[in-house]
Amino acid sequence: MTKNKGQVTIPTDVDVIDDTLSLIEKWGADAIRDCDGTDMPDELKSMDIKRYATYYTTRKDNEWAKQNPEEIQQMYLMSRFYTAVDDVLRIPLMKHFYDKQLQVNTIDDIKRWWEVIDRTTGDVVDPSEWDYDETTKEVVLHKVDIFHAYTVSFLAFIIWDPVHMYNSLTNDWQGEDRQMTYDVRQPKTKEYAINKFKHYLEEHKEIDVIRFTTFFHQFTLVFDEYARETFVDWFGYSASVSPYILERFEKEVGYKFRPEYIINQGYHSSNFVVPTKEFKDFLDFQQREVAELMKVFIDLTHDAKKEAMMFLGDHWIGTEPYGKYFKELGLDSVVGSVGNGMTLRLISEIPGLKYSEGRLLPYFFPDTFYEGGDPMKEAKVNWVTARRALLRKPVDRIGYGGYLKLALKFPDFIDYVEKVTDEFRALYSKVANHQPYVAPFKVYVLNSWGKLRSWGSHMVAHALEYPETRIYEGVLEALSGLPVDVEFISFDDLLNDNEVLNKAGVILNVGDAYTAFSGGNYWANETIVKRVREYIYEGNGFIGIGEPSAYHKEGRYFQLYDVLGVDKELGFTLSYDKYNWEEKEHFILEGLPKDLDLGEKIQHVYAFDDTTVIRKTNKHINLASNTYGKGRAVYMSGLPFNFENTRLLYRSLYYAASKEDEIKRWYADNYNVEVNVYPSTNSYCVVNNTYEAQSTVVYKGDGTSFDITLEESEIRWFEM
Amino acid sequence: MTKNKGQVTIPTDVDVIDDTLSLIEKWGADAIRDCDGTDMPDELKSMDIKRYATYYTTRKDNEWAKQNPEEIQQMYLMSRFYTAVDDVLRIPLMKHFYDKQLQVNTIDDIKRWWEVIDRTTGDVVDPSEWDYDETTKEVVLHKVDIFHAYTVSFLAFIIWDPVHMYNSLTNDWQGEDRQMTYDVRQPKTKEYAINKFKHYLEEHKEIDVIRFTTFFHQFTLVFDEYARETFVDWFGYSASVSPYILERFEKEVGYKFRPEYIINQGYHSSNFVVPTKEFKDFLDFQQREVAELMKVFIDLTHDAKKEAMMFLGDHWIGTEPYGKYFKELGLDSVVGSVGNGMTLRLISEIPGLKYSEGRLLPYFFPDTFYEGGDPMKEAKVNWVTARRALLRKPVDRIGYGGYLKLALKFPDFIDYVEKVTDEFRALYSKVANHQPYVAPFKVYVLNSWGKLRSWGSHMVAHALEYPETRIYEGVLEALSGLPVDVEFISFDDLLNDNEVLNKAGVILNVGDAYTAFSGGNYWANETIVKRVREYIYEGNGFIGIGEPSAYHKEGRYFQLYDVLGVDKELGFTLSYDKYNWEEKEHFILEGLPKDLDLGEKIQHVYAFDDTTVIRKTNKHINLASNTYGKGRAVYMSGLPFNFENTRLLYRSLYYAASKEDEIKRWYADNYNVEVNVYPSTNSYCVVNNTYEAQSTVVYKGDGTSFDITLEESEIRWFEM
Repeated sequence: MTKNKGQVTIPTDVDVIDDTLSLIEKWGADAIRDCDGTDMPDELKSMDIKRYATYYTTRKDNEWAKQNPEEIQQMYLMSRFYTAVDDVLRIPLMKHFYDKQLQVNTIDDIKRWWEVIDRTTGDVVDPSEWDYDETTKEVVLHKVDIFHAYTVSFLAFIIWDPVHMYNSLTNDWQGEDRQMTYDVRQPKTKEYAINKFKHYLEEHKEIDVIRFTTFFHQFTLVFDEYARETFVDWFGYSASVSPYILERFEKEVGYKFRPEYIINQGYHSSNFVVPTKEFKDFLDFQQREVAELMKVFIDLTHDAKKEAMMFLGDHWIGTEPYGKYFKELGLDSVVGSVGNGMTLRLISEIPGLKYSEGRLLPYFFPDTFYEGGDPMKEAKVNWVTARRALLRKPVDRIGYGGYLKLALKFPDFIDYVEKVTDEFRALYSKVANHQPYVAPFKVYVLNSWGKLRSWGSHMVAHALEYPETRIYEGVLEALSGLPVDVEFISFDDLLNDNEVLNKAGVILNVGDAYTAFSGGNYWANETIVKRVREYIYEGNGFIGIGEPSAYHKEGRYFQLYDVLGVDKELGFTLSYDKYNWEEKEHFILEGLPKDLDLGEKIQHVYAFDDTTVIRKTNKHINLASNTYGKGRAVYMSGLPFNFENTRLLYRSLYYAASKEDEIKRWYADNYNVEVNVYPSTNSYCVVNNTYEAQSTVVYKGDGTSFDITLEESEIRWFEM
Repeated sequence: MTKNKGQVTIPTDVDVIDDTLSLIEKWGADAIRDCDGTDMPDELKSMDIKRYATYYTTRKDNEWAKQNPEEIQQMYLMSRFYTAVDDVLRIPLMKHFYDKQLQVNTIDDIKRWWEVIDRTTGDVVDPSEWDYDETTKEVVLHKVDIFHAYTVSFLAFIIWDPVHMYNSLTNDWQGEDRQMTYDVRQPKTKEYAINKFKHYLEEHKEIDVIRFTTFFHQFTLVFDEYARETFVDWFGYSASVSPYILERFEKEVGYKFRPEYIINQGYHSSNFVVPTKEFKDFLDFQQREVAELMKVFIDLTHDAKKEAMMFLGDHWIGTEPYGKYFKELGLDSVVGSVGNGMTLRLISEIPGLKYSEGRLLPYFFPDTFYEGGDPMKEAKVNWVTARRALLRKPVDRIGYGGYLKLALKFPDFIDYVEKVTDEFRALYSKVANHQPYVAPFKVYVLNSWGKLRSWGSHMVAHALEYPETRIYEGVLEALSGLPVDVEFISFDDLLNDNEVLNKAGVILNVGDAYTAFSGGNYWANETIVKRVREYIYEGNGFIGIGEPSAYHKEGRYFQLYDVLGVDKELGFTLSYDKYNWEEKEHFILEGLPKDLDLGEKIQHVYAFDDTTVIRKTNKHINLASNTYGKGRAVYMSGLPFNFENTRLLYRSLYYAASKEDEIKRWYADNYNVEVNVYPSTNSYCVVNNTYEAQSTVVYKGDGTSFDITLEESEIRWFEM
């Protein structure tokens, strides 16, 4: 068998030239790259292979940063909360931040750009009532309400790029300068950075692909006084600010900027907070300005006959691949880290690209590739998890990052990656550019973000699981590999776009009460409640997970209590006797084990009399269904990711869509096995998602079936 | 040994005369009583014993009720929620109520006294837009907002007294009339009832004590279409209304009454709902009017040379023993059911009485006293539980209720009660009227009700445990037997009374977020936050259990986060890294087992950096302490009742009060054993609260100690 080649990128470094060459062969790589802390060897610069150069627009030039301290990147920070216990209150700004990463900005007018807030009342403290003591780095409030709590929102310069810092500490880089960041949006630095980039392009004829890491603004990543991470928000905009930018923002929107628009009670307007009007204005402004400047760099890249690739991470803030401006920029590619199926789709669905690339895990860093470590395990889980999503919408390339020399110490791993790269190319050739078969209804994921946060809900740090969100992250992860057509819609879409629900489908609303994902105060809006009720009543479906539609109002917590047939006991309706606790047999449980992990986070949900209770734990409903007019709803207390729950979601979708008669088309009885179909090529595959053999009945499109046994993680292809 | 006698009341009936006589001897009873469904035998009417007659002011006279249908008692009900899916919405009023208990009131002006509410917006529907269809018992809305939900609040007559109904169904009484209720507050019935009572007094010279069961208004108790309980609120005022009463209320307060003041979103203004201003006005109005009319009945009783005793239950609504008016009424006694220590204190602490009486459990009803039943078990738990509270503040008498003939079938039980009555008298002689030793600080229980709901928090149906409240009910239950001076204070006290926190002490705030017990929107009030912070900061203590001070505002959920050193993760601060999870040794755990049941209801509480984490489950803090100025706080996720937790609370109180050096005074190392001290009599007792022998070290007041072993549930007395 001739070796397949191509669609694979590997890292290289000056100390592994021969190994790079042999791995290019073994893995069929057609591109090599440098990384943070590695260099492209001169010996490979003339080789017949695509070369990516990691390009840092905002760092690796401390000289410039030092010469232009006022154009160093800035971040909004909030002090801790301090309660006044005396007539004067001193609030230390840097006590809990890492002073090697951050430095208070006193260059810009602090009275204009800082904000002291009485958090007991929410009132802003008049700037005349406080001062900043530079020697102690404290804000001093001269006039306080005693026993009120206060915070200071302030600007700080990012004097050590947090990713460089993370890489440096993780790899124990010694004797290297701490890379400062500079703000390419500001006038002097903009001109300088563009010119610098032009020179770079001229001087690096051998490079084929400029891999921007990334563009201009780092996601929010802050370290504490012990250099530990203290705040991380992969979607956070707090580090995308400066007075220069904010003045432009003010001019555009026509109202005064307040630090609180970003800080938002210390939540830093995270993904989980229902976005305010001002924050949405700010996001839009940032996207437009970032897009404009991205375009300059992309055009220069093209002028130099190179491709422009963006890394979806690090300084990606403001680029917003699912936003309004991104797809028009002419960017050739996006590469991102593939933590799971959901983050694969986050990359592969980005519109307007020539191709996309997924960087598989593990990254070749010493935190995984240490003596006694087990990188194989992570690689296997990563591949099988990502493969579900690849079969729905593949990235066009895969790759690896880090230090090749670390990986070379694990020959099993090197062999496994060979299998992965071969399987990827085989799979890609069958799947790419073919619309796969999908269920006969649409799946709408409804939250406060809609399209902008496609495949990005409930995420804090990239692809990391948090115990608080595991019951929700399973939903997108399950969907990432299911044969369904997913569309992300927002509450604003419901308010402004009469066409948004114009297809038959099932709406999903997933999350904790009052978060952006369940919707919070959007559910106090009668138009939203009415539109959703009407849509379901007319024969569509609704699946609520966690605390769907939660907003405590007029005697109800779940505002769609009537659609869902359940509500949560907050303590106010204990006087009502609740009799409906008997678990019933149900279509959605067919073929699933008795014990399902639906999480323990959401408790005290009870069912109304006519609701079908499917699963409960003590007096907590875990699973229930309800009929609403011609439509149906399913309630789940949570959906951690596993294959049982993935199947449960799939069956629930068909049930909610009233299409249960059609589910056994391209369907495997065994929930560890999935079937993907590509009608335009008359082919389909049956995939074992586990690390052991699986037997199942497989149903074809005409309803006929056959038995099959698959090896560990096998994918088997058939003609129709 | 001569038999002790007295302070015991037993039920009797016409079919158990001889047995009554022998039990009077065996149990040392000095009073006999009839019950609902039993009669006082003529043979005992001249005996030298106190005779109680149960007197029903509001029922057992169906003739009167039928002649005066407009003065039958009424109740505010709310229909279920109905979503409009068409131009017209028909809301059935009685579909889910028991039509033998309740009957829609169409005598009074429905447009004035009913209220149709759009629960999607909260707006009241104009009365011109709906009608009532008598034939179908439906309210018909002619003009609706489609897909909005509506409810109807309406008045119904109580055509079967719910307690009579309950007793009748429980005992399977056949062929008896369903007793209707009439409203003694209304003019005709008032006159009639007073005269009837006068006649009764004249005709029952043999009776010594009129045991009112109770006065005028039943607590809210509603049955559904299957005659099952559908709503119960032992504190509920929904059945204390009539247009006659409400018009008087309007006149007094000077604003228009709205049904919603009672109905409150369907919550029926329960104990758990932070009371509105209007509801507080209504409570005050009702108390005053009820007190006035109680006084008439009490005075008549006294004129007839009898004692007036009130049963704390059934129609007790409006009497409010801890309210402003009760203690001035000259009532001789209150008798109530003792479900546990907390309900014992609920009776024994009532001010203004000559004596109080506790009806011990089990009640002699066939639901416990059936063949194969185990009434002994309930009796033992009941006695040992009640005894803890008796040792702090005893009732003056105990008694039993129900059918004596049922109890007689259980001779072990009869023997056990002999032991109980003897022990009660012995204990009482040492304890009554002697101020016991208390800890050197005050315990303030802070909630929305304060004194009015002394010993009555977190209760739904009388002394029944609900899974949702078990983590809170343990607090008062523990306190009911601890040597501490407990005072119930309200948030209104904090706002209006500068003296309320004038003693050194520990504040307890206990309950679910937004309920009346934790305080809800009171915590948005800066004065309250400030007063509590200041009090703790100056050297006092705070113990928060569950979701203390919870009100989501300005970046915090627990508004006393700074005092407590913990807050709850709602999903908005996931971006903040939380490092403080290591359990520390702590004073409050001394002598307690490793595993404590602090409930599983409250999750996702995390600690700030300087807080001492004491117990956690995964990433949920169960127990923590914090220093705040000169004061201290303890956080607990819950406190279900058991002896470990009782001790935990006791130790936490000393810790929070910074008095840990003083705890080993009158203290037993073994948490199953407690010590009660009566300085004025130079005596103390050591009590084993369990059903097995216990050994312990006992510390005396001077710090010296001795070893002791106690038999099962033994109480041993010592001279100092």
